[in-house]
Amino acid sequence: MNNLKGIAASAGIAIARAFILEHPDYSISQKQVTDVDAELAKLDAALAQSQTELEAIKARTLQELGEKKAEIFESHLLILNDPELIDPVKEKIKSESVNAEYALNETAAQFIQMFENMKSAYLQERAADMRDVTKRILKHLLGLNYVSPSEISEEVIVVAEDLTPSDTAQLNRKYVKGFTTNIGGRTSHSAIMARSLEIPAVVGTKNVLSSVQSGDLMIVDGLEGDVIINPTEAIVAQYRAKQEAYAKQVEEWKKLRTEPTVSKDGVHVELAANIGTPNDVAGVLDNGGEAVGLYRTEFLYMGRDKLPSEEIQYVAYKSVLEKMEGKPVVVRTLDIGGDKELPYLDLPKEMNPFLGFRAVRLCLDRQDIFRTQLRALLRASVHGNLRIMFPMIATLGEFREAKAVLEEEKAKLEAEGIQVASNIQLGIMVEIPSTAVLADQFAKEVDFFSIGTNDLIQYTMAADRMNERVSYLYQPYNPAILRLIKMVIDAAHREGRWVGMCGEMAGDSTAIPILLGLGLDEFSMSATSILPARSQISKLSRAEMQTLAAKALEMGTAEEVVELVRAIDAANA
Amino acid sequence: MNNLKGIAASAGIAIARAFILEHPDYSISQKQVTDVDAELAKLDAALAQSQTELEAIKARTLQELGEKKAEIFESHLLILNDPELIDPVKEKIKSESVNAEYALNETAAQFIQMFENMKSAYLQERAADMRDVTKRILKHLLGLNYVSPSEISEEVIVVAEDLTPSDTAQLNRKYVKGFTTNIGGRTSHSAIMARSLEIPAVVGTKNVLSSVQSGDLMIVDGLEGDVIINPTEAIVAQYRAKQEAYAKQVEEWKKLRTEPTVSKDGVHVELAANIGTPNDVAGVLDNGGEAVGLYRTEFLYMGRDKLPSEEIQYVAYKSVLEKMEGKPVVVRTLDIGGDKELPYLDLPKEMNPFLGFRAVRLCLDRQDIFRTQLRALLRASVHGNLRIMFPMIATLGEFREAKAVLEEEKAKLEAEGIQVASNIQLGIMVEIPSTAVLADQFAKEVDFFSIGTNDLIQYTMAADRMNERVSYLYQPYNPAILRLIKMVIDAAHREGRWVGMCGEMAGDSTAIPILLGLGLDEFSMSATSILPARSQISKLSRAEMQTLAAKALEMGTAEEVVELVRAIDAANA
Repeated sequence: MNNLKGIAASAGIAIARAFILEHPDYSISQKQVTDVDAELAKLDAALAQSQTELEAIKARTLQELGEKKAEIFESHLLILNDPELIDPVKEKIKSESVNAEYALNETAAQFIQMFENMKSAYLQERAADMRDVTKRILKHLLGLNYVSPSEISEEVIVVAEDLTPSDTAQLNRKYVKGFTTNIGGRTSHSAIMARSLEIPAVVGTKNVLSSVQSGDLMIVDGLEGDVIINPTEAIVAQYRAKQEAYAKQVEEWKKLRTEPTVSKDGVHVELAANIGTPNDVAGVLDNGGEAVGLYRTEFLYMGRDKLPSEEIQYVAYKSVLEKMEGKPVVVRTLDIGGDKELPYLDLPKEMNPFLGFRAVRLCLDRQDIFRTQLRALLRASVHGNLRIMFPMIATLGEFREAKAVLEEEKAKLEAEGIQVASNIQLGIMVEIPSTAVLADQFAKEVDFFSIGTNDLIQYTMAADRMNERVSYLYQPYNPAILRLIKMVIDAAHREGRWVGMCGEMAGDSTAIPILLGLGLDEFSMSATSILPARSQISKLSRAEMQTLAAKALEMGTAEEVVELVRAIDAANA
Repeated sequence: MNNLKGIAASAGIAIARAFILEHPDYSISQKQVTDVDAELAKLDAALAQSQTELEAIKARTLQELGEKKAEIFESHLLILNDPELIDPVKEKIKSESVNAEYALNETAAQFIQMFENMKSAYLQERAADMRDVTKRILKHLLGLNYVSPSEISEEVIVVAEDLTPSDTAQLNRKYVKGFTTNIGGRTSHSAIMARSLEIPAVVGTKNVLSSVQSGDLMIVDGLEGDVIINPTEAIVAQYRAKQEAYAKQVEEWKKLRTEPTVSKDGVHVELAANIGTPNDVAGVLDNGGEAVGLYRTEFLYMGRDKLPSEEIQYVAYKSVLEKMEGKPVVVRTLDIGGDKELPYLDLPKEMNPFLGFRAVRLCLDRQDIFRTQLRALLRASVHGNLRIMFPMIATLGEFREAKAVLEEEKAKLEAEGIQVASNIQLGIMVEIPSTAVLADQFAKEVDFFSIGTNDLIQYTMAADRMNERVSYLYQPYNPAILRLIKMVIDAAHREGRWVGMCGEMAGDSTAIPILLGLGLDEFSMSATSILPARSQISKLSRAEMQTLAAKALEMGTAEEVVELVRAIDAANA
């Protein structure tokens, strides 16, 4: 028996035999060819085979997993047919008389490197897509015999270095009971796909691939991040029990889909979801989301060569509002800059981008961008229950200025005879310490707050959350953070405002008891966390959590707070 | 009459004729020489002339301005005689048969660029020194007829693009009544020199050089940052009166040199100074400093090719403690990383260095560095009144860990039979929001706090203070900052601890009334700000300032706070 620890990437327990998914050797050498035309024909054949294969995968994905998941393969087909990639490959074969696989690999490597050098997460994902497509063509060029995960026809746990988007999309839930990889984190592509496929997964184990033989019995515990190879019978029995308990829990959660979120002592809170695109709304509703607590509009601005028009934005906002059928939708205005770049904006490099010219700071300076977005939002407002939220507000002056711009655009639209909803709530993200500390002053002027814990924690602790050397300081449970959250909630409630939270912390089962105790009104999280959170809250007494929170606020360290919450869990269990 | 606005760099009023200090044209072209030996001889002659000149300036500076100011020219002499600079110049003349001025200029430019590319302020200053020395040699090589400021023999105001360190050091206070420049800021070299020479100065006027003719009558108002060219008689009379009033004030301040700092209603606070080297202590005592509130030990680590030994550090710490004759000396342990680099440490580049691996974070990781410094401090402790302070503490865990390391080193020294003072106070910088918010927990374990406002403001507002695009968010008077300061002071006093402040804000006349009202115990500032601050505090009633501070805490914006304080000033005037 051999135990490995990884990152719990997708909940659930899988017990099955190992299927080793190893990618073939794509190593390539440069060869001089005499028959250039034959080489070009070889390339065309490989492109055609790839096309057929991708279309088949796309069709199957569409049928089994829906439109959104199939989009990846639509992107792959676009890359496959992109003359900007293919023409230079053919040119290289002709001008240098080299073999097709070498010409393809060299050309694609240039594009991949270009994408990777850009810091945007979006473009880095494009690099991954390009790599995927290149491998597919190479497989055909090299005549490699790659066993695709789609050919699996018995119950297995897939073990791999990592899984590409195509790998994951080809995993058939009927046979693939779980997977585990050497690399990756909770937010890597494979982890996100696993959650959406509801396949238990543990990623980032570092060395599972070298620790397991094909056919070994193994357990993947996606709840705890454990992988067990060749378990004893006793262990298997133990995990079968855990598996059943979890299945029961999932059933119980599903019953909560249309229920309100109510604590054991009858206090209602709202569970909302964070989304990035209109396509995400389906998942929100499937998981019983009561609202969209954070619609990140940045994706509208990414993957383009210029700013999105008012019309493009209007269509997206209207779509989300309509699909949510009158449930609240909190739209955050553009939060670009910092680590999120837009190539066409050409922002200057900054020494400390997280402390720089971003979000509302940029929007107040580039009012052309800001006004276009606000107009699109105001026009869409009649199609649902819109709430507008400004990010990175540090001073009352900034809020007043941004609000004045909104009022101006509203007046202009009304003068043009365009209808605007009269009940749009206007709020701010609380993600800068100054705003938390001065929340009582803000509460007199805003309709709501949404606490953005990811940034609030990094500024309060003065620690870049992307920097591994100081990651030990990213402490959601530090009593200083809890105190700032309390300041915001108390200040808002004194003025009759509501407070939400849209950082990672809102969906974190260790934080939820404390947040409930502090009086948080709305919790916005990944859609898939909503039902477990609803279940958790239904078992907690708000009055007891108030006592718990009061204790946590008087502690000295994050570690003590975690211990306190664990003790409650243990008492409840 | 022509009025210009600049930055008030050194207090006082000067009224005199303009002396235009323009630097000669050093433009150089590459020439092929046939007689290489003649070219080498020309270089040697220029070096010898520069040497004689620099020695004369150094001797005069030593006599008139003291050892510290003369050090600059000692550095220049070292550069002039540095084979690492001169040998490559000679080599270039020989190998490329080029003219000496070209060879010198090219070689020096490489060094200058190298220094400038390093982000450390210290190395950028080395670049300025290198540029100065190069110009001096070039002046002799090119036979330029440059009028040195030292030749001035009537009362003038010097007008220049900028002043080099040599220019400033040659300014004779007897004749040079003031100066004004196009470029520079409050912390540029020329501004610092002006303050230490007590010559009124206005820098950064942008275009004074093109606005004035040699011999024009002009006024430099170093209190307000005004420059007036060809003033009317009425204006001159007005400024003569202002000049006299200021002179009286200076006399009054000087009387306070040996006085304690006491408010109008009899509350004593401590005025301390920030220093960087043992040489700065003389200025602290001259200006009536009651303590060293911040000894920045970074300078010991800069300008070297390796870490300073325990012995080098011991000598420096002992020297400061002895010179302060039993007055408190707060030594901050190494605050390196972030924007302050040490080339020999080879720290990784960070995306957000201000939120990165610096100060105590680095010291807890590189305990070899930390322990050497702590040993040096502990050994020096018997020579005066030492207080040790850790920078960038974000969590109680970090403080406990750092304290444990200190205790270990103390125990080791005592085991070795080395004496250590028994009354060393141990405190922390409060410059991270989490620590301010959790000050009550820290107050149970530390002896004192010193609030570092420069960093506290930048983290609390999430705005890089070096980034011009967000500099509007660097708001010392933002009520959120004042509230954090209040939290720290109240928490400390409840536990019987004292609180100091060692950021820019402590010496700022707009902040002082509020800080007095909030109950700050120690104000640590530039030595030259101490006497004006003592005078200001003697005219303020602490009880009234408590009322003022309470009002400021309930305001919404920094602008409102400034207005409030100005109203008090107006009422007192």
